[in-house]
Amino acid sequence: MRLKAQPINCTLKAAPGEDSSTDVMIGLLAEQFESRGVEVASTIRIAAHTIPPGVRSDEGDGDDWPAIRKQILDADILIFGTPIWMGQPSSVSKRLLERMDAFLGETDEAGRMPSYGKVAVCAIVGNEDGAHAVSSQIFQALNDVGWTIPAIAACYWVGEAMGSTDFKDFKTTPDKVARTAAMVADNATHLAGILKASPFPGHEG
Amino acid sequence: MRLKAQPINCTLKAAPGEDSSTDVMIGLLAEQFESRGVEVASTIRIAAHTIPPGVRSDEGDGDDWPAIRKQILDADILIFGTPIWMGQPSSVSKRLLERMDAFLGETDEAGRMPSYGKVAVCAIVGNEDGAHAVSSQIFQALNDVGWTIPAIAACYWVGEAMGSTDFKDFKTTPDKVARTAAMVADNATHLAGILKASPFPGHEG
Amino acid sequence: MRLKAQPINCTLKAAPGEDSSTDVMIGLLAEQFESRGVEVASTIRIAAHTIPPGVRSDEGDGDDWPAIRKQILDADILIFGTPIWMGQPSSVSKRLLERMDAFLGETDEAGRMPSYGKVAVCAIVGNEDGAHAVSSQIFQALNDVGWTIPAIAACYWVGEAMGSTDFKDFKTTPDKVARTAAMVADNATHLAGILKASPFPGHEG
Amino acid sequence: MRLKAQPINCTLKAAPGEDSSTDVMIGLLAEQFESRGVEVASTIRIAAHTIPPGVRSDEGDGDDWPAIRKQILDADILIFGTPIWMGQPSSVSKRLLERMDAFLGETDEAGRMPSYGKVAVCAIVGNEDGAHAVSSQIFQALNDVGWTIPAIAACYWVGEAMGSTDFKDFKTTPDKVARTAAMVADNATHLAGILKASPFPGHEG
Repeated sequence: MRLKAQPINCTLKAAPGEDSSTDVMIGLLAEQFESRGVEVASTIRIAAHTIPPGVRSDEGDGDDWPAIRKQILDADILIFGTPIWMGQPSSVSKRLLERMDAFLGETDEAGRMPSYGKVAVCAIVGNEDGAHAVSSQIFQALNDVGWTIPAIAACYWVGEAMGSTDFKDFKTTPDKVARTAAMVADNATHLAGILKASPFPGHEG
Repeated sequence: MRLKAQPINCTLKAAPGEDSSTDVMIGLLAEQFESRGVEVASTIRIAAHTIPPGVRSDEGDGDDWPAIRKQILDADILIFGTPIWMGQPSSVSKRLLERMDAFLGETDEAGRMPSYGKVAVCAIVGNEDGAHAVSSQIFQALNDVGWTIPAIAACYWVGEAMGSTDFKDFKTTPDKVARTAAMVADNATHLAGILKASPFPGHEG
Repeated sequence: MRLKAQPINCTLKAAPGEDSSTDVMIGLLAEQFESRGVEVASTIRIAAHTIPPGVRSDEGDGDDWPAIRKQILDADILIFGTPIWMGQPSSVSKRLLERMDAFLGETDEAGRMPSYGKVAVCAIVGNEDGAHAVSSQIFQALNDVGWTIPAIAACYWVGEAMGSTDFKDFKTTPDKVARTAAMVADNATHLAGILKASPFPGHEG
Repeated sequence: MRLKAQPINCTLKAAPGEDSSTDVMIGLLAEQFESRGVEVASTIRIAAHTIPPGVRSDEGDGDDWPAIRKQILDADILIFGTPIWMGQPSSVSKRLLERMDAFLGETDEAGRMPSYGKVAVCAIVGNEDGAHAVSSQIFQALNDVGWTIPAIAACYWVGEAMGSTDFKDFKTTPDKVARTAAMVADNATHLAGILKASPFPGHEG
């Protein structure tokens, strides 16, 4: 059964056409996943949608989260893309994580959240510093709500301290980033595959 | 010259009338500041306003940030209130920090950001765990954009692991929280006072 | 093939006989793993050993890490136990993570670190606050050096804000902690099993 | 009254003669402080001393902390130097912070910890990424035990993602780092001066 990956881009830029370095990093991962036979859905640019603050799966009229939530849960692999601002994940990425808090109350008869058996990886970019701070927060929050994190789950680029280069301006991908993208795709594809074939059995009581 | 404090509440609840535990914590600090002669402005509930994602001081039509930014900078002390979700600061608080990133480019002739000489303290509440993770991120981000952090700058309450008690449901304030609120107000008031009397001289070149 | 778990205790208390709340949490998890057929090795109290600072797998004479490293890598599941101090993981736990940095240079012919295919979970205790800050840092550091993190990988207890209760003084385990321990063991056992049966294939080039 | 700064270096390298990039960053700050009239004590290389794990100010025979603690508290400004490992502060720096936890119980008759009125700044270096994660943790832990953090309190350098350049190998200091060092020294010197002239009054009750 073919695996499916869903990328999300938590850039602060709302206009879908606006260039985003995070999109470039997501594209790099998407290419690697596709070359391993994974179907990669179109990237969802979160800031282009209306996602009100809250911790429920539906915050009412005009909430775009229910549809995005469905797209994310239809996939086996989440590619969580976010830029770094002030050394931290974007407010848009935090909004998304908060909405996933609802998974805690949406368990099936075996106590499994809707995210169980799915794997998540990060695509992180910034002008400088913050990639590990970002992945640590995203890993912890996603893990708390049921996602599994495969070995080497963060593909990132940041420039030198206080730098201002944008990842999207590179003409060729730095070798180490390209290698990391391949490793992330290797491990996530393998883990998503065996978890799909042999899902978490869930919990008693 | 009388000092002024501006509290902000970064709860996810947009309706100004909706009960917020963060408001209760802010109220506790406000009372302490007032009893030390500090004027405390009305709390700004951020989620009740429209603050688009971005890193500029004005993101255009319908942006409420320019007015809120002015209120914050009119005060000497920022009371940064945020709930904890998933062990981390709220997306609303992150949105605000990102908008302050613009301070980096808004220096005066002596290289001082508009936040220079002002002090910031945190008011943090959650059902369980995360207060230190929240204060670490807020301190770092605020400090990067020019705020000074007085000794003992976080007043917080969280319940036992995986608890569900709300701070707003307490009939009386826990002793240790009351004592911390007094300490935070003591130090922030003193530091804001001496910094107002003797501002940072700024930087050469 | 029977799975094996190796617990480590990163308490600051060096004397093996000295009571440690972290040991109690590890014991809770060990019991759950054993009831699922996993062999659980004796807990290694790290502070009772000499582990010099460094980022190599052997820092020379008197270094106890090579033997501990072997014990950890002989198991399929790492139970990473640490207390919380100042809202953060202990210095002893950081020492251990730094020594695992060497894994990055110890890949096999398929580019796999010695930790590949192994899963890690956390056992975290503190008087108050910090569990999510701790798990976020441990997940990120372990993931960077090849460990896989199963859904719901942190079992923790902390008391109310500024509390002073020790987890070891509980007469009965809080229900929610007991339930979490079972969930952690369920997921980690399943994931370690399928990864052992179907290891990460590694990377080309 | 002349101000005094005490630098500490939390590198993993124990040999005092061994080259440390953190020393270079500390040296940069020391020069800036000296040119503003601050006396800068010799850097204490923590890993060259025996500092057992614990949270008391004296852990008994062979503990070098009591003497180092005295040197730190004899100064007005702490220059907290640490390398980055795995995107996080070093285990050596965490050891030190834990030992300062004892300050909480060492208040004077006005409820002031021994760190009250002193300011702390960071000197952080790494091959790549992690400076903001490090400063966030150090600011939070130091603030919890009574230190004040002046505006712009972190001077750091990190290379591009997954880089391997050492800061100590630069022939000339990058402009932005030099400018930051001057800003850190400007603000910390001013703040330490006014706090020395007008100490925190402490707390009632």
